[in-house]
Amino acid sequence: MEHKELFIYNSFTRSKEKFTPIDPDRIGMYVCGPTVYSDVHLGNCRTFISFDIIYRYLMHLGYKVRYVRNITDVGHLENDVDTGGEDKVAKKARLEQLEPMEIVQRYTNGFHDVLKQFNTLNPSIEPTATGHIIEQIEMVQQILDNGFAYEKNGSVYFDTQKLNATSDIYGTLSGKVQDDLLTETRDDLKNQSEKNHPSDFAIWVKAEPKHIMKWESPWSLGFPGWHLECSAMSTKYLGKTFDIHGGGMDLQFPHHENEIAQNMGACNCAPVNYWMHANMLLMNGRKMSKSPDPITGLSNSISPEELFEGTSPHMSKPYSPMIVRFFMLQTHYHSTLDLSDKALLAAEKGYHRLMDANRVLTDLAYGGNDQSSEEDVEINKLLDQAYEDMSNDFNCPQALSRLFMVATKINAIKNGQLDFNLVSRTTWERMQTTFHNFIFEIFGLKDDSHGGGNGANGEVLDGLMKLLIDIRQDVRAKKDFETSDKIRDTLKELNVILKDGKDGTDWSIG
Amino acid sequence: MEHKELFIYNSFTRSKEKFTPIDPDRIGMYVCGPTVYSDVHLGNCRTFISFDIIYRYLMHLGYKVRYVRNITDVGHLENDVDTGGEDKVAKKARLEQLEPMEIVQRYTNGFHDVLKQFNTLNPSIEPTATGHIIEQIEMVQQILDNGFAYEKNGSVYFDTQKLNATSDIYGTLSGKVQDDLLTETRDDLKNQSEKNHPSDFAIWVKAEPKHIMKWESPWSLGFPGWHLECSAMSTKYLGKTFDIHGGGMDLQFPHHENEIAQNMGACNCAPVNYWMHANMLLMNGRKMSKSPDPITGLSNSISPEELFEGTSPHMSKPYSPMIVRFFMLQTHYHSTLDLSDKALLAAEKGYHRLMDANRVLTDLAYGGNDQSSEEDVEINKLLDQAYEDMSNDFNCPQALSRLFMVATKINAIKNGQLDFNLVSRTTWERMQTTFHNFIFEIFGLKDDSHGGGNGANGEVLDGLMKLLIDIRQDVRAKKDFETSDKIRDTLKELNVILKDGKDGTDWSIG
Repeated sequence: MEHKELFIYNSFTRSKEKFTPIDPDRIGMYVCGPTVYSDVHLGNCRTFISFDIIYRYLMHLGYKVRYVRNITDVGHLENDVDTGGEDKVAKKARLEQLEPMEIVQRYTNGFHDVLKQFNTLNPSIEPTATGHIIEQIEMVQQILDNGFAYEKNGSVYFDTQKLNATSDIYGTLSGKVQDDLLTETRDDLKNQSEKNHPSDFAIWVKAEPKHIMKWESPWSLGFPGWHLECSAMSTKYLGKTFDIHGGGMDLQFPHHENEIAQNMGACNCAPVNYWMHANMLLMNGRKMSKSPDPITGLSNSISPEELFEGTSPHMSKPYSPMIVRFFMLQTHYHSTLDLSDKALLAAEKGYHRLMDANRVLTDLAYGGNDQSSEEDVEINKLLDQAYEDMSNDFNCPQALSRLFMVATKINAIKNGQLDFNLVSRTTWERMQTTFHNFIFEIFGLKDDSHGGGNGANGEVLDGLMKLLIDIRQDVRAKKDFETSDKIRDTLKELNVILKDGKDGTDWSIG
Repeated sequence: MEHKELFIYNSFTRSKEKFTPIDPDRIGMYVCGPTVYSDVHLGNCRTFISFDIIYRYLMHLGYKVRYVRNITDVGHLENDVDTGGEDKVAKKARLEQLEPMEIVQRYTNGFHDVLKQFNTLNPSIEPTATGHIIEQIEMVQQILDNGFAYEKNGSVYFDTQKLNATSDIYGTLSGKVQDDLLTETRDDLKNQSEKNHPSDFAIWVKAEPKHIMKWESPWSLGFPGWHLECSAMSTKYLGKTFDIHGGGMDLQFPHHENEIAQNMGACNCAPVNYWMHANMLLMNGRKMSKSPDPITGLSNSISPEELFEGTSPHMSKPYSPMIVRFFMLQTHYHSTLDLSDKALLAAEKGYHRLMDANRVLTDLAYGGNDQSSEEDVEINKLLDQAYEDMSNDFNCPQALSRLFMVATKINAIKNGQLDFNLVSRTTWERMQTTFHNFIFEIFGLKDDSHGGGNGANGEVLDGLMKLLIDIRQDVRAKKDFETSDKIRDTLKELNVILKDGKDGTDWSIG
């Protein structure tokens, strides 16, 4: 497929821009990954699923994409500023009496398992912060050599005032002016005196004696500041300036703002051409939070596992990973998304409607007379529009609405309400290809309503269901209602739904 | 469970020894992982499955085990000696025109996917060589400081003659005497002159200008020798001396021999108390090899995927990961294991027999009168022996044979050939627990004959099969043979097997 014209909302310029990659055929994309000190948050999953769809669509457009998503396994402090906070991984290790790398391994595995359930593709490279200490030390040295940092008692601080004297870039991404920066940069007392200016930030931190994750450097036995890893690793794997940098909206400040500062200091260039931010996930209209509500005693929070297993008091039933993924598609990545039982119930219906329509498209033989018509033109327009929506800042909900309009046509054809002769063979085949591409390749959904994705067992399940549907018809014809009732009742117990249609009976789970 | 007395065959002393861990409750175990430059070899899978069972059994005995298994992503040279060979990962990256870390990511993911299919547990820590360059540089420095290495033109070599002058450890593990070492250490011409002695080996390698994976060090812009990573990472995560070091038999020399040398040089102590080596996997009696046979044109080689999908000309059908895992259990880890279609067919039967017996044990209510008997004593002895076998250098095949003897009793009870009254309730319950522990916890098998391990779909599958077995009985009673024949024929097509027994009909796939 030739590269379609693509528009991306750039958080840096706050405007939708035509996308022009540095290399016409290759794209470099960096997305900030998780800090692996606890189970992955569902809100983070939303971010990674959003960028998974962006990654899939860029590849679908024919680009070769190098997609780098890091694992933060050191340096992310509890209080996010300078040396006052405790390292999140090290703290968890202390509490659980484990080696920090055991904590890292456990939660990295858990993170991968959850994303696999959501059917996200693996990034091309998944570098870790501890795996790039040398590169980070080198970058600190470059920033020092260029005069954009200073050392105090073994720690090294980025000199934001020096950057401000030569450029007005600092604060642009987050839209914060210097006064805001002053106010928002909470200072811990201990290190206030070390910094020349409150908005300066640590890029190398001298370790306290009790600190366990530390490495030799020219300045001290210490560890890198959290923001540094992304600058060092994006530069190593994507170059000094690359195409797309993504992450959750909450990372704009200070994390991404400071990444830009570090790259300016080390390389004297802005690192990223297009900054993209996925918005927050809410639940029942409010920010997710683990603290219990004073009245209900319930926390406004849910884990992926609770969602899949239906064990949360907020949900009436379990929702499969594909239904949750579909639910996320229904809102643009740049808007907040509100999770609720009601919204998931609706998403479940929508998911099955889409999958059912796709199955009809796949199974139904073309039954028209290969003539064109106004219907034909209308369907083609909808398919074109779905692509235009995706190329318009990855507007999934809009593209989805086009597919649903086509799905209505498909069902009408199946049920004989729309004349098959009004749709040409070319259009029918284009519908098949486009549905397949959107559902499986771009949206990254799997059809689990038929027990799909389980290889051999999926086939057995399908075979057994065909057999049962067949027997049900036979015994009805023989007026053996005892047996046909038994089939009906047992399937109901097993949550298998039969749907009688013009071309026979179809089925789905749940 | 209190720690049972355990005996381990120690490759270093060539004798079976009573196992005494350094800490009475905790065990440190290091296993050499894969070099991630190609799809994982089935022979490597055997090694990792062997150590998975060892890991599981140690935990079953009540130990806390820190299990470290590394990923080699740099430094493993094509010719294994000094600087003449090309780095395996870098070579693959050159051939595929990718960043080396993209190669690393792709094959690390593939490795994890295959091991997940084999149901191996994740290690506690899975460190990478590139993630520990600093630790490796520090170890080179220690070895230099202690006088066991010398620098030549930016590369650093381990001084085996210096070690030989102070200790007779070098050569003990592999049983090679100095003359052998001289003969077996193929020297590349370029670096011969740099080494003081042919058996010396590189621990830091100065990179050629074209080399892409390189780091700054006190000696040169270069990369660590392959053997170094395991010394540095085992020391970091398990201490200077730890309990168990495992790997494939082919790693004894030079890899493990050189690890010992490096640790002696850096810390002046032997790193490992118990060296364990898993033996090779053969196919059809011969070493696996990718080069085609001159007569048949077939290579004597098979990948895990070909095995699972049944696409190899060497196999008559696909074998599920659990059948392959069961097959591997049937041979002691210290013996060579010969893969063949015939052996896998037999393993398939054995696997189903074991799973069927376990299902009978789980489903059948105790039907005796709680008296003891000679049968009772015999069964308890077999269960004791299964544990003794495992504690005797992890003798899985022997333990398995005890379980099969118990399985015969279970089937006899089910079929009414053995009086249930001869087995006491305590023994019946002990049989249930022991079978469950061995099959699922220690051997790490899953019951996939009932479509198990697929969560919700497994339940649906089970429900549909119960319904069909029920309908089959009903329609037979009504003399509706058309329907009962249809059920029989369709199940046969789907490869679902019905087994009529005393307590009704059971089923399995395959």
